Amino acid sequence: MERIKTGIDGLDELMHGGIPKGQLVLVTGTSGTGKTIFCSQYLYNGITKFKENGVFLSFEEPSTSIKENLKVFGWDMNSLEKAHQLSFLRYDPYHIEDVFDILESTIRETNAQRIVIDSISALGLHIKDSSELRRMIFNLSETLRKLDCTAVLTSEIVPGSRGLSRYGVEEFVTDTVIVLYYERLDSTFSRAIQVWKVRGSEHSDKLHPYMISDRGIVVSPTEEAVIKS
Amino acid sequence: MERIKTGIDGLDELMHGGIPKGQLVLVTGTSGTGKTIFCSQYLYNGITKFKENGVFLSFEEPSTSIKENLKVFGWDMNSLEKAHQLSFLRYDPYHIEDVFDILESTIRETNAQRIVIDSISALGLHIKDSSELRRMIFNLSETLRKLDCTAVLTSEIVPGSRGLSRYGVEEFVTDTVIVLYYERLDSTFSRAIQVWKVRGSEHSDKLHPYMISDRGIVVSPTEEAVIKS
Amino acid sequence: MERIKTGIDGLDELMHGGIPKGQLVLVTGTSGTGKTIFCSQYLYNGITKFKENGVFLSFEEPSTSIKENLKVFGWDMNSLEKAHQLSFLRYDPYHIEDVFDILESTIRETNAQRIVIDSISALGLHIKDSSELRRMIFNLSETLRKLDCTAVLTSEIVPGSRGLSRYGVEEFVTDTVIVLYYERLDSTFSRAIQVWKVRGSEHSDKLHPYMISDRGIVVSPTEEAVIKS
Amino acid sequence: MERIKTGIDGLDELMHGGIPKGQLVLVTGTSGTGKTIFCSQYLYNGITKFKENGVFLSFEEPSTSIKENLKVFGWDMNSLEKAHQLSFLRYDPYHIEDVFDILESTIRETNAQRIVIDSISALGLHIKDSSELRRMIFNLSETLRKLDCTAVLTSEIVPGSRGLSRYGVEEFVTDTVIVLYYERLDSTFSRAIQVWKVRGSEHSDKLHPYMISDRGIVVSPTEEAVIKS
Amino acid sequence: MERIKTGIDGLDELMHGGIPKGQLVLVTGTSGTGKTIFCSQYLYNGITKFKENGVFLSFEEPSTSIKENLKVFGWDMNSLEKAHQLSFLRYDPYHIEDVFDILESTIRETNAQRIVIDSISALGLHIKDSSELRRMIFNLSETLRKLDCTAVLTSEIVPGSRGLSRYGVEEFVTDTVIVLYYERLDSTFSRAIQVWKVRGSEHSDKLHPYMISDRGIVVSPTEEAVIKS
Amino acid sequence: MERIKTGIDGLDELMHGGIPKGQLVLVTGTSGTGKTIFCSQYLYNGITKFKENGVFLSFEEPSTSIKENLKVFGWDMNSLEKAHQLSFLRYDPYHIEDVFDILESTIRETNAQRIVIDSISALGLHIKDSSELRRMIFNLSETLRKLDCTAVLTSEIVPGSRGLSRYGVEEFVTDTVIVLYYERLDSTFSRAIQVWKVRGSEHSDKLHPYMISDRGIVVSPTEEAVIKS
Repeated sequence: MERIKTGIDGLDELMHGGIPKGQLVLVTGTSGTGKTIFCSQYLYNGITKFKENGVFLSFEEPSTSIKENLKVFGWDMNSLEKAHQLSFLRYDPYHIEDVFDILESTIRETNAQRIVIDSISALGLHIKDSSELRRMIFNLSETLRKLDCTAVLTSEIVPGSRGLSRYGVEEFVTDTVIVLYYERLDSTFSRAIQVWKVRGSEHSDKLHPYMISDRGIVVSPTEEAVIKS
Repeated sequence: MERIKTGIDGLDELMHGGIPKGQLVLVTGTSGTGKTIFCSQYLYNGITKFKENGVFLSFEEPSTSIKENLKVFGWDMNSLEKAHQLSFLRYDPYHIEDVFDILESTIRETNAQRIVIDSISALGLHIKDSSELRRMIFNLSETLRKLDCTAVLTSEIVPGSRGLSRYGVEEFVTDTVIVLYYERLDSTFSRAIQVWKVRGSEHSDKLHPYMISDRGIVVSPTEEAVIKS
Repeated sequence: MERIKTGIDGLDELMHGGIPKGQLVLVTGTSGTGKTIFCSQYLYNGITKFKENGVFLSFEEPSTSIKENLKVFGWDMNSLEKAHQLSFLRYDPYHIEDVFDILESTIRETNAQRIVIDSISALGLHIKDSSELRRMIFNLSETLRKLDCTAVLTSEIVPGSRGLSRYGVEEFVTDTVIVLYYERLDSTFSRAIQVWKVRGSEHSDKLHPYMISDRGIVVSPTEEAVIKS
Repeated sequence: MERIKTGIDGLDELMHGGIPKGQLVLVTGTSGTGKTIFCSQYLYNGITKFKENGVFLSFEEPSTSIKENLKVFGWDMNSLEKAHQLSFLRYDPYHIEDVFDILESTIRETNAQRIVIDSISALGLHIKDSSELRRMIFNLSETLRKLDCTAVLTSEIVPGSRGLSRYGVEEFVTDTVIVLYYERLDSTFSRAIQVWKVRGSEHSDKLHPYMISDRGIVVSPTEEAVIKS
Repeated sequence: MERIKTGIDGLDELMHGGIPKGQLVLVTGTSGTGKTIFCSQYLYNGITKFKENGVFLSFEEPSTSIKENLKVFGWDMNSLEKAHQLSFLRYDPYHIEDVFDILESTIRETNAQRIVIDSISALGLHIKDSSELRRMIFNLSETLRKLDCTAVLTSEIVPGSRGLSRYGVEEFVTDTVIVLYYERLDSTFSRAIQVWKVRGSEHSDKLHPYMISDRGIVVSPTEEAVIKS
Repeated sequence: MERIKTGIDGLDELMHGGIPKGQLVLVTGTSGTGKTIFCSQYLYNGITKFKENGVFLSFEEPSTSIKENLKVFGWDMNSLEKAHQLSFLRYDPYHIEDVFDILESTIRETNAQRIVIDSISALGLHIKDSSELRRMIFNLSETLRKLDCTAVLTSEIVPGSRGLSRYGVEEFVTDTVIVLYYERLDSTFSRAIQVWKVRGSEHSDKLHPYMISDRGIVVSPTEEAVIKS
């Protein structure tokens, strides 16, 4: 099985080598868990370490804002964009009729192999029901598989919910699920990451601590994390 | 009572010999519990160990993707398909008017005895209410019984729910219910299987550990598992 | 007060002699608790031990399937049917306009004294709201009382709910309520029965273990059961 | 403050002498707690011990059935009815346009002072929303106050709910609230009564055990009960 | 900051001298906590101890009934009414178009400084959504502020809810919030009061016991109360 | 990264120097946690300590009332307003078509750098669904970023909810989230503050006590707070 390395310190190890190529990955967590950093790091590493071009499809935040927020990690997304290694697409979730056509043509034009869609929850808010969202994610996965891309989608967990995603369907139509936790124990909040599933592969069955450092997300693959709920 | 062996290591023992022939089996669990692997293993074992042909009806994932994911277990579904021992049907859950007619004619043509429907939850998302889903499952069970088939359906459990199925009706109109758990105790996630009911038969009243090995699902019938909730 | 013995081992003792004649009994529990076995056993014992004819009204499962599943207990329902001691009626819950007329005329023709309706939940799914279901159950109880019949209805408890019935009204319009539990303590599931109420009669205020043996349901009236929730 | 004695053993003591005259009393509890027995005992005692006539308005159960179920306590409601001391009214909750007019004229004709309405929940099921039910209960209370009657209404608590009534408004528009509990501790169920509020009066602030004996409800005013939830 | 003393024993002390003049106060609690007594005591004390006239606006209970229930405390509301120090307004919550105009003109005519609205929950039941209720409360607060009145509103807490009010908006548009608890610990129910917030002022951060005595509500400002939930 | 100091004692320290310039900050908590004080203190400090003008947009409370309530802290908002350093805008949440245009022109005219919107929950009540609110907040954030403003929005937490905001979307479209807690431990209520997230910056991962003193909000950055839930 061919693997796509995220290049995120410590994470590929938990997935026994990386994301299986061609899969749809769901990264999910409450607000503040670093989902957009995760996605960007996946793309940045792809380009700078593995020579794989990327596309970042945002349904909410404009590229200027995303790129600005990433400077703190020393990631110069602008120059990657100018070098045609990275493309930013931003789509208003109200007008998405042709978004996946645009995504597909952008992938073909730029020969991208890594795709990020941030967030599927923002998209879901504008869709009538969860069955339509499920279908849309599924169709997307087929398109991306055909294009030989490995994609990361983000979904949101509302604090207090015990679910894995905002709509309760996202985790069922994706191949790999990574959950980011941010929970309080007594008076301290801590971060933990879990590789919930990887289709067709073994993976760590532990909860591991991670931090958002000045180099982006760093996972401690040999330590175990404890959360309350 | 005639039994259909799943051939899944350790499982038939928990069911006192296998699934009673002609029954409708519900396999249910959260995302990542291996429901599709379970179904495929049931079909693969049927063909290769018990000379019983199979039909896999998918409402979401295309056969190429399913078959690809099973290669890791060494199951060559393609050659079974070519040998007319296995048939894949994929139906869009939006257009299901004649799906059970097609299923029936496929069963007759291929003389199949083992049927998989994966997943009944994907179907349910497109149906107006749970009473219609209940009725559809019931009609299906009558058709399959008439054809002397033993079928496995999958349903999804949303994490945090204490129910056995997505719609709360699936477990009432099926004969046998098998629940797959994936839960965390402290910082480690573990898997457990439970034979919830088998109509007309005794069965294990324990929770047993299982793993997804390179040979597919393997149940430990002599060990007991502990989960939190 | 005249009593109708269920003939279920150990149960009549918990009810201080049996079901008060003419009452409507609700048997409720999650999937797999043996509600249909309970009902069938009530009818079978009525005919074979107490010379009281019975009618089984099913809103879902066909009589062939019900009878087939009961063979494991050695109950030959077919010969009872041929001897005109037992009648099976199956009604599609979508077309129930005249179901209670048919039920009444069947009762009169066969001089039946024991009635089973399995399940009132399947009926409820096709009714607009719980007030209509409540009214329907109430009207049914009046008809049956007039005919001097003692009837058992089944309702379903969705796992995780703390209610006694699917719609929250069934237990209020029936005279006697019997709850069947199937719950896990650590890694073992066990069965317990409770006589929740018997209108106009004292009854056991304990939770008792029961099993589904090869003779059907067997209650241990002198033992106490413990369940978690 | 003038008091109406319920005559239920031990209960009037908890209310410091009985129900304040003219109040609307809510008796609430899950199925099987003896609400109808409570109401009937209130009327029966009123007639036989305190020379106060009564009216029983039922929205569901017919008077024959109610009277039949009370024979076990030795209460001959029929002869009270024949002596024009007790009136039974039964109204279909679907056709209640003039029910309170009929109730009022019956009260005037029979000079009744004790009224029972069983149950307000059955009525509520046929009303569009809880505000309408609230208003209806309030109007009723005004009519009854004008007629110098003291009335007992019943409401239902669905097991698992922590509320005091089916609609969450009943306890706010009644003057006195009495809650009947039936809960399990380990493997034994027990009964407890609580006088939740009495407008304009002190009352016991304890939970007391009660039983349904062959003389009807008997409260132990000097003992305390313990329930789990 | 000018303060309005409630004159309720022990309470003004918890609020560091009373309610800040001109504020809108929410008094909230389950049924039976004495909210109407609280309001009436606030008005009665205002007139008899502080020479401030009052208006009692009721959306449900008629003034005769309210006044009757207060006699137990020795409060002769009738004579206050005759002396034009107290006005009772009762409005049907279905017809409230001009209620706040009437309230305003009554305040002007009687030169009232203390206003009670009992209950805002009864009003809310007849309003389409909680945003309309929020707006109505807010407009009311502006009118009352303009008239230099200090008003007390009551809201209801449904038992089992952890919220502070029936609609979840009342506590956000009022200046001061006082919560009345009535909860069981083992077999005894007890009362506790909490000053949840006072805009622009410090206040006790403790839970204190209170009782409904023959002089009305009496708070123990130097004792602490314990409740379960 | 340029920082905007809140000037709230102890808080900037928790955020490693203040709010990153240009961000949208969510301040959220139950009723009585001091959200409006927080916002006002942010503006007041901006003007008096950092020479940055401010705009306060209120969707509910009129400026006179807000200013009045702040006098207790010695903040003379009126003179700031007269000096054209502070502008108050109040908008009826029912008529918000052009509110963000007005906000933008006010910002331009007064050269404001600090913006407060209190509360986004009051706005949300008048919007059809949470997707529209999410979009509105997002558009607002783009406008404010373009104007180089740093804005604080407030949202409400309904007691008993475990969420961070009234609609479950506010925390996902804001850059920084600060949560104010007011919870009971035994019989005492206490206040705690948490910096939940700061986009692009590290921050304290502890829960800290805060108080509402006569100088406004004061945070204890070196102490840890404990809350129950």
